Amino acid sequence: MLSFLDAVKRILVGRPFRTERLKQAPLRKRLALPVFAASGLSSIAYAPDEVMLTLALAGVTAMAISPQVGLVIMVVMFVIIASYRQSVKAYPSGRGDYEIASVNLGPKAGTTVAAALLVDFVLTVAVSLSSASHYVIAAFPALAGMQAWIATAGVVILTLLNLRGRGRSRLANAAPVYLFIGALLLMLALGGIFAAMGTLGQAPSAGFEVIPDPAYPDGLTGVAGLLLVLRAFSTGSAALTGVEVPISNVHTLAEPKARNAATLLLMLGLIAAVLTLGTMYLARAVNVHVVEDPATGLSLDGGPVPAGYIQDPVLGQLAHAIFGGESVGFFAIMLLTVAVLLVASHTAFNSFPNLASNLATDGYLPRQLRTRGDRLGFSNGILSLAFAAIALIWVFNAHVPTLIQLYVVGVFVSFTLSQLGMIKHWGRELAMTPDKRPRARIQRSRLLNMVGFVLTAAVLAIVLGTRLIHGAWLAVLGIVVLYALMDSLHRHYVAVDEELAIDTGQSPTALPARVHALVLVSTVRKPVLRAVAFARASRPSKLDAIVVDADSEQTEASVAEWERLGIPVPITVLASPYREISAPLIEYIRSIKRDSPRDLIVVYIPEYVVGRWWEQLVHNQTAVRIKNRLHYEPGVVVASVPWRLSSSDSAAYGGSTEQASPGHKTISAVPPVSNAKD
Amino acid sequence: MLSFLDAVKRILVGRPFRTERLKQAPLRKRLALPVFAASGLSSIAYAPDEVMLTLALAGVTAMAISPQVGLVIMVVMFVIIASYRQSVKAYPSGRGDYEIASVNLGPKAGTTVAAALLVDFVLTVAVSLSSASHYVIAAFPALAGMQAWIATAGVVILTLLNLRGRGRSRLANAAPVYLFIGALLLMLALGGIFAAMGTLGQAPSAGFEVIPDPAYPDGLTGVAGLLLVLRAFSTGSAALTGVEVPISNVHTLAEPKARNAATLLLMLGLIAAVLTLGTMYLARAVNVHVVEDPATGLSLDGGPVPAGYIQDPVLGQLAHAIFGGESVGFFAIMLLTVAVLLVASHTAFNSFPNLASNLATDGYLPRQLRTRGDRLGFSNGILSLAFAAIALIWVFNAHVPTLIQLYVVGVFVSFTLSQLGMIKHWGRELAMTPDKRPRARIQRSRLLNMVGFVLTAAVLAIVLGTRLIHGAWLAVLGIVVLYALMDSLHRHYVAVDEELAIDTGQSPTALPARVHALVLVSTVRKPVLRAVAFARASRPSKLDAIVVDADSEQTEASVAEWERLGIPVPITVLASPYREISAPLIEYIRSIKRDSPRDLIVVYIPEYVVGRWWEQLVHNQTAVRIKNRLHYEPGVVVASVPWRLSSSDSAAYGGSTEQASPGHKTISAVPPVSNAKD
Repeated sequence: MLSFLDAVKRILVGRPFRTERLKQAPLRKRLALPVFAASGLSSIAYAPDEVMLTLALAGVTAMAISPQVGLVIMVVMFVIIASYRQSVKAYPSGRGDYEIASVNLGPKAGTTVAAALLVDFVLTVAVSLSSASHYVIAAFPALAGMQAWIATAGVVILTLLNLRGRGRSRLANAAPVYLFIGALLLMLALGGIFAAMGTLGQAPSAGFEVIPDPAYPDGLTGVAGLLLVLRAFSTGSAALTGVEVPISNVHTLAEPKARNAATLLLMLGLIAAVLTLGTMYLARAVNVHVVEDPATGLSLDGGPVPAGYIQDPVLGQLAHAIFGGESVGFFAIMLLTVAVLLVASHTAFNSFPNLASNLATDGYLPRQLRTRGDRLGFSNGILSLAFAAIALIWVFNAHVPTLIQLYVVGVFVSFTLSQLGMIKHWGRELAMTPDKRPRARIQRSRLLNMVGFVLTAAVLAIVLGTRLIHGAWLAVLGIVVLYALMDSLHRHYVAVDEELAIDTGQSPTALPARVHALVLVSTVRKPVLRAVAFARASRPSKLDAIVVDADSEQTEASVAEWERLGIPVPITVLASPYREISAPLIEYIRSIKRDSPRDLIVVYIPEYVVGRWWEQLVHNQTAVRIKNRLHYEPGVVVASVPWRLSSSDSAAYGGSTEQASPGHKTISAVPPVSNAKD
Repeated sequence: MLSFLDAVKRILVGRPFRTERLKQAPLRKRLALPVFAASGLSSIAYAPDEVMLTLALAGVTAMAISPQVGLVIMVVMFVIIASYRQSVKAYPSGRGDYEIASVNLGPKAGTTVAAALLVDFVLTVAVSLSSASHYVIAAFPALAGMQAWIATAGVVILTLLNLRGRGRSRLANAAPVYLFIGALLLMLALGGIFAAMGTLGQAPSAGFEVIPDPAYPDGLTGVAGLLLVLRAFSTGSAALTGVEVPISNVHTLAEPKARNAATLLLMLGLIAAVLTLGTMYLARAVNVHVVEDPATGLSLDGGPVPAGYIQDPVLGQLAHAIFGGESVGFFAIMLLTVAVLLVASHTAFNSFPNLASNLATDGYLPRQLRTRGDRLGFSNGILSLAFAAIALIWVFNAHVPTLIQLYVVGVFVSFTLSQLGMIKHWGRELAMTPDKRPRARIQRSRLLNMVGFVLTAAVLAIVLGTRLIHGAWLAVLGIVVLYALMDSLHRHYVAVDEELAIDTGQSPTALPARVHALVLVSTVRKPVLRAVAFARASRPSKLDAIVVDADSEQTEASVAEWERLGIPVPITVLASPYREISAPLIEYIRSIKRDSPRDLIVVYIPEYVVGRWWEQLVHNQTAVRIKNRLHYEPGVVVASVPWRLSSSDSAAYGGSTEQASPGHKTISAVPPVSNAKD
């Protein structure tokens, strides 16, 4: 059974890698740019849509201001990028906002940032792949309705790729992003030229009328209108996620790391701004009409839209208008968008396990998340991310307009705390800098972070204010729960560390006075004889065989057999009026302890090793229960003496040690301080 | 957590009983009769209904022959009773048909009988309590639709009563059965008198017309009609279940056990015959019209029956006709029927765990079924029965006409094999008896069992022929699966016994040459120091501390700390290029074994004992995995050195040993044959 699962694992994941393979050549800028930018750029696949369909609630004229909303978002982005360019120089370790918040604002803020980022990475995967599934459906309408399956398939593929780990070429990540940027620039340029020539086509949805929501009778006027614009802005802020990627991955860059990261940030910002704004202006020019639910939000000549109408994403409608519906250009744009969304999810598959591993090292998450798997990836982190993302995809049926409500909360919590941390950072620097010139530079830096703080805090307030009831509460809840979990786990680890620390006065060479060995006997068969032999070999000060009299017939038979065989160990029968095994045994051990408190008691328990899972159900149940119970008794060591039933031969872990053989090398690191034989 | 569950258990089940309490006064006949008869008599609650509604498929005139069908069933019953009266004298151990089949026909037949009876006991509970739920609804129509819940509540109540075990008064079982017999006799007598006076009322359903099934256009004529009569007969055979109860419980009777059991069998038969036939004749007289589905099978003045019409069982309709609808008599009959059905299920709750325990002792079921619980009942058997019965109740929504199709198969498999076994038994007796007189007696006995065999085999054939597709296949499947399970488990136990038996030539005093102890070190903290101290206390021939280098930073820190503390044990670092712990360790152990094959290797593993369930998730994962893997290595003993974290204090099993204290008494049964200290 095990070897079969092992074989499946080998096929899916590949042969294990040696630890030395961790060392990897640093990333050069031209390969780093696409990887670092994918997350930020991929939002062009959904952010313009979300801005437009939010504004569409107030009617088609309201949709016309979407490019202006996009412009404001880009301004915010540049402020954040400018401040991150400073941060990455001050904290070039790759531990990112988590480190900035921890160091400057204390562990509570650090934990909050970490919780927020973990939630955000999960949402990056869920939103990107849900969006990708709609691009797949736009290209292949026959798949309509399968969006959750498609997105799940994406998660599974990425999970396997990441479990396979460091085998992949970096080019495979870089190429689609460059192609996407190129294709989008080409499309926007063509669109611009057509528009100038007056030959620009119309979007497939241009002919539909947008039915305004009854809640917005006067378009964007009044408080309701203002709130709607703010909601569109906060939804569109999804375009800002991914800006934190360079600072979280700066350690993988070629030297000079920090300067390269700063350059990459700027390039990312410029490309994102051109593509996002170009898309939004062009979408207005070709009259893209998108709404949350086409069946109720759109009409055609006063009647409903045709049955089975599938609303393509904005990029799809642009490609349709510029290249034509079934054209190569259309399919290329669709395909490349899906590829970029996959690369963006892939960066989350890198960031999440990385952050989780950092948190595990600091004792905020279970230690298992620190372990590198066969292929050197943090397998447990990768699997946790995959499960969480798949759960979200199915709960929301891969519906981007709903998922997007949860998004952004996490990243803006982290932005805001990071800005605050940097303000503190500069304040400290200032206190340590007497010279005038450097002081002026530091003050300028601090001012930038102050502007950044006000801006990101304002966006966070807008996001929470306009979207809390639309779904953001779930993200907030996730962050709070994760925070509580990490905090209590950390307290636990700290408490255990203190409890287990070796006291300065403690002599590491103190020994228990005497060893009193007990062999637990049920039926007198080979395993018991072996347990007795092993117990005798350990030369205890005192050795007893113990039978607990839970079944008088069996007890008598065992004692008789013991005498018949002439085993040179005294046997003691413990009365058990309530047919229990553990209670009389523990009572007996306690009575020994009362008489000689400094004795060490070793209980030898014969145990079966079985090969089939159901055999475990019919053997050892009592042994396991007794062992668990004896663990609670102070001063007792439980020694399992295994007896391998013949059925266990096939299940033995024979093959797996071969694997280790080539690398096995025993080195005696420390010479014996004294001889152990005393 | 544990102490809370313990408290709940104490409230539900009560304080544990001492083993001595098992000895119980034997049952006298007048208390045994009701208990032994309940199962047989309780079928009056549903068997007449099933006969009538099966015949109703061929129309109302076909229903008129139901008393004749009942008469044939009673004839079969008396043959079976007569043969059981012989069997119980030959096999008075209380192991019943299982023993008769095992001894005379071999273990395969015995296992078949056991599997059949286990299935049948589950069905007894499911059918009886489903039927009881309909009586409850007849008395309280507001509960209509809740039948599965009511039946489940019955199972839960009986389970708790049986887990509480021997505390109950036998009178509580006996009284309702006597009252039921009395009340039914009174009702039948009154009905007879009213009929003679011509003042007998009509059943509530007398006014309805029965709509014949289109499959039976000519009533009971032809082959279809004959098959329907046979089906009615086989369904009505449910009245025969319960005849096996006396032979399965003969050991609880007062002396002379076998003769008392035979007398009880006869009395049971007479009472059952009078009540069953009386009920069926009277039901015809008051024109009870019952069908499987009143909505399609009944009509009123050519139209459908009123909406919400609840079809009362036959006994209910009789009570209605004789005592009146809302009368005390009606409610008394309903209540007593429910009580008798509960007592009948209760006998199954006795028989199933008893048989399961016998099977476990013989190695056909897991040993856990042999363990007596706190209150001396076979708790695991009781719980298994309860789960199986509840599953059946919910799968069939407590619908008796469907459940009854599964019933009877098991009991007739066991009847038939038991008769065959008795024929063999008499054959053997005959071979050993030379005298003429006793030979004639034996031949008469054998003839009776031959008649019984032909009859029960014929009924089994009819049951399988007419009901296999109606649901009996599920019971057959259950028997086959259970047989396969018991058979393979038995093979396993036999194989293990052979494997573990101590060879005659084997010296029980052979000792391993030397002991080589290894202490597994991860971080150097208190638990490791304790493990080292314990290992040194056991004075091994050789002692090594082992660090597996899965994480180079941690390894260096551990080795440095080891040196700093001056622990007088050499430390060995094992290389682990694939970051595994077990594989390098096992490779190292194998290399030791290669050098000195007769050495015993003891691996000391420091282990945390934690108090909260989630702490188990974040500790010990590696220790548990290593232990499991080391169990497969021959010649290795794993010694767990527990370190109790402070959180484990509250969860320690402190209280439970007090319970054992009063009965605790250590007796040295065998004087030391030689001194263990060598």
